[in-house]
Amino acid sequence: MENLLSERILSTPPSFVRSILKTAMDPEIISFAGGLPNPVSFPQEELLKSMDSIVKTFGSAVFQYSITAGIPELRQYIADSYNKEFDLNLCADDILITTGSQQALDLISKAILNKNDGVILEKPSYLGAIQVFSQYQPKFHTVDLAENGLNIAQLKDVLKNDIKMMYAIPEFQNPTGLTYSKENREEIYEILKDTDVVLVEDDPYGKLRFEGQHLPYIGAGKLKNSIVLGSFSKIVTPGMRTGFIISKNKDLIKHISIAKEASDLHTNVFSQYLIWDYLMKNDLKAHIAKITELYRKQAQTMLESMDKYFPKTVKYTRPNGGMFLWVTLPEGVSSLKLFPKALEKKVAFVPGDPFYINKKDVNTMRLNYTNADCETIEEGIKRLGELLSEI
Amino acid sequence: MENLLSERILSTPPSFVRSILKTAMDPEIISFAGGLPNPVSFPQEELLKSMDSIVKTFGSAVFQYSITAGIPELRQYIADSYNKEFDLNLCADDILITTGSQQALDLISKAILNKNDGVILEKPSYLGAIQVFSQYQPKFHTVDLAENGLNIAQLKDVLKNDIKMMYAIPEFQNPTGLTYSKENREEIYEILKDTDVVLVEDDPYGKLRFEGQHLPYIGAGKLKNSIVLGSFSKIVTPGMRTGFIISKNKDLIKHISIAKEASDLHTNVFSQYLIWDYLMKNDLKAHIAKITELYRKQAQTMLESMDKYFPKTVKYTRPNGGMFLWVTLPEGVSSLKLFPKALEKKVAFVPGDPFYINKKDVNTMRLNYTNADCETIEEGIKRLGELLSEI
Repeated sequence: MENLLSERILSTPPSFVRSILKTAMDPEIISFAGGLPNPVSFPQEELLKSMDSIVKTFGSAVFQYSITAGIPELRQYIADSYNKEFDLNLCADDILITTGSQQALDLISKAILNKNDGVILEKPSYLGAIQVFSQYQPKFHTVDLAENGLNIAQLKDVLKNDIKMMYAIPEFQNPTGLTYSKENREEIYEILKDTDVVLVEDDPYGKLRFEGQHLPYIGAGKLKNSIVLGSFSKIVTPGMRTGFIISKNKDLIKHISIAKEASDLHTNVFSQYLIWDYLMKNDLKAHIAKITELYRKQAQTMLESMDKYFPKTVKYTRPNGGMFLWVTLPEGVSSLKLFPKALEKKVAFVPGDPFYINKKDVNTMRLNYTNADCETIEEGIKRLGELLSEI
Repeated sequence: MENLLSERILSTPPSFVRSILKTAMDPEIISFAGGLPNPVSFPQEELLKSMDSIVKTFGSAVFQYSITAGIPELRQYIADSYNKEFDLNLCADDILITTGSQQALDLISKAILNKNDGVILEKPSYLGAIQVFSQYQPKFHTVDLAENGLNIAQLKDVLKNDIKMMYAIPEFQNPTGLTYSKENREEIYEILKDTDVVLVEDDPYGKLRFEGQHLPYIGAGKLKNSIVLGSFSKIVTPGMRTGFIISKNKDLIKHISIAKEASDLHTNVFSQYLIWDYLMKNDLKAHIAKITELYRKQAQTMLESMDKYFPKTVKYTRPNGGMFLWVTLPEGVSSLKLFPKALEKKVAFVPGDPFYINKKDVNTMRLNYTNADCETIEEGIKRLGELLSEI
């Protein structure tokens, strides 16, 4: 069987999160492992109204094959909204609709990565990104992520290698919840501006800010090989798998579109009309305010519970938005080895290992706070605290 | 810029059909170029009812992230329906839901193809398949397709090469509309049964039969590396991008699932619930009968018009189902060179070239008969006939 499979797939790790999904779905377990938005973020009644409306207005067009780039209405909406918020001077043709942000990572990799090409990742990085890039067998280089952003000296150092692409989540990073400071972003821009590196800024969580202001992108509108990724998964619905790629580099967009066409022809067209209609007819800001108000409370509850129940030797990040926070245990403690013990106490988290390239038994873990109510969060953290007090 | 792009994408042809889509969408042009189902095949009212029903029944689950394989309800439905029709002894875990059949081709390629691996295609073959496989830079081998199926001597001959995969559309093939006979299928099975070749039988059109009976698959339930592809695009809606992979080879399904997870996490979950609810509550056979009755008339009108308006030197297939037929012009006539002249006469088709590997100016073309009414079909064929009389 090994002979039958591609080198590519044999070097692609299965997702740890998805492999424990069944365990974490046991209703007795309090799970901080997933990355599920709270269902309050799905405007069900409004979406149902929009379904009725688009079928009546557009008829068969919402059920028919469509163009690869995505429907012009939705692409124009995205261009307008990013122009308004970030002054990026985008037009509809700078946008490509994808089957969720995950597909965007696959299509970009397809269009630019040859085997052994250099790719820079944050350390730690999003496990789904490590998985999708691994399919293209690149050479990974990592740069430490700290409280205010990337380690600049390390970044300069890894850029001495032959680098094709850099992947970053500057706002409420997955897994750490950290956000790059304005100064850190400017420093990164200065370093990248004379290179050909394709900078992929993944921004699925930017709108989920409960403290402060969204900061300007590092490269968007400035770097020639800039790509920004966005998604409706965290603010409208993830089940509809609707994300997008923004780039003013026409040659990049053209070749990523060929990859898109070959990969699935086009994104679900019903979902595109649906989300567009919803956005045109509803107050998205008010909807997002409702979500972030909830997430603020849940994050606060988690942090207060950790202050109360965790030993003082355990450290954690304090995010201003997004869905995750990051816990650092005392040196030498393997969170992976704690995992089965946590399950015995009916609480789950994601051990740090899958967020690193080739590291085992790290002393970090990711906790999600968006998908449990405050009471459950406190109870889960209490159970984790008991476990951590025993180490 | 060349340096920035992957070898892979530079060896992937853009789709001819999609590149002429804009031209073909000019309302003045009668287009036989696309592969669009007739909108009558979209049960709009029933789908609208099912939307309401699934939101009310399943609530947030239809908008949330879901498992990679696809919802168990839909996979079980597919297993049951193929067991009933083809006696395949499938369970839900033998099914993987994909973002349309096109994605199935991408995921299979990802999971098994290394660069230069041998892939057998029909000659001519589906252009979207040539495109998606090209991304993985295989070595293509082609086998002539004739009235009753594949050329068996040629198939034996190409199997002397190192072959990883064989791709075939045995029922109402795209582009030719031809169907492999029962005897031809049995001969192919006998040849493949002692090899490790992964046989991908793509069957998006099988249910669109207006003459005779669906024939047994070549390898399903018999070959150890058998894969069958199915789709709801032609019988419910293509806009929802819902297809599926069937294989009883657990190792293949497992690795294709890893590719799926990395590529887009999972298929749109709303669409999965929607199609499942529609299938459970409606008479699919009656719905399909309505579609095939229409397509039979349209195919008949096209054939009768061709008999009437085409010069006798022009030959064409007479399909028993599906969406396409295939025209062969006199030797030496390039359909690609005729194409701009046809556009001047306000009629469009797909020249044969993109259905072949490295062939230019062939004397064949594909015509679609599903997406125009009978009157329009006759007028379009008349215009084409005028053009063909001038060659």
